[in-house]
Amino acid sequence: MPRKNFQCEIDDYKSWVLGLNARQPKFLHMTLRISDIDVSLRFYLDGLGMRLLGHFDVEERCVTALFLGFEIGGTAIELTHHWDDSPSRLCGPDYFAIGVPDIHEAFARLEALGAEVIVRPQQVLVGWPCVAFVKDPDGYKVELIQTRN
Amino acid sequence: MPRKNFQCEIDDYKSWVLGLNARQPKFLHMTLRISDIDVSLRFYLDGLGMRLLGHFDVEERCVTALFLGFEIGGTAIELTHHWDDSPSRLCGPDYFAIGVPDIHEAFARLEALGAEVIVRPQQVLVGWPCVAFVKDPDGYKVELIQTRN
Repeated sequence: MPRKNFQCEIDDYKSWVLGLNARQPKFLHMTLRISDIDVSLRFYLDGLGMRLLGHFDVEERCVTALFLGFEIGGTAIELTHHWDDSPSRLCGPDYFAIGVPDIHEAFARLEALGAEVIVRPQQVLVGWPCVAFVKDPDGYKVELIQTRN
Repeated sequence: MPRKNFQCEIDDYKSWVLGLNARQPKFLHMTLRISDIDVSLRFYLDGLGMRLLGHFDVEERCVTALFLGFEIGGTAIELTHHWDDSPSRLCGPDYFAIGVPDIHEAFARLEALGAEVIVRPQQVLVGWPCVAFVKDPDGYKVELIQTRN
């Protein structure tokens, strides 16, 4: 079930979590798939002292994403909760995201280096920047996010 | 086999990767276990454009750790290469590290919240700060690093 009643620290967190208009590449966030939002927020907010800086639901994918951090502008931890998820589907952090000024250039460079392609550069969600997914040499998933408009 | 001939950007990276003397909690690094250093550096340095900011070998544990980042002070990616490693032992990012000013206080708070304890606060390596390991509610490993002297 989607959840929309979280208390967030900032209204417009998009520029932060997506590194919008960053001129240099940036380690934007690490994404963890979680099974229970309330339980995880108790750990990360009450336990570790992080702040809930933003969240959104993607209805068509039945997923809630919550962005946590210690400071605005720093690398975030994104918790993703799939509404139909079960703990058995969890297996390590899902991926991590790198913001790049020119996604087509970065993607081409990685592909030329032999990186396995998961998703070619494309706008996956309306209103969000162009993204791509590749695998690092050990199979870790890396999301590229276009940061320059 | 240990490797000591990497070209690093800064001599004293310890204060950066460990967040020494940070007064606020900080997302210090995410650790990925890798199988081939040269192949991974090609991906992260030549491909993604990260910089190799520091590295060290832990002889008694037969592991090389390399710290990569886009900027000094930002969250790092730590690549760990176990000299006897095999690709089959890799299964997702290993853990991520949060710097905390008072590790005993943070650890006690997390334990009181029911977090599973892996390693209680202790100085694992001589000359390095006190660390602890707990699991988040989904089993993700979180390293706590004492940042205040």
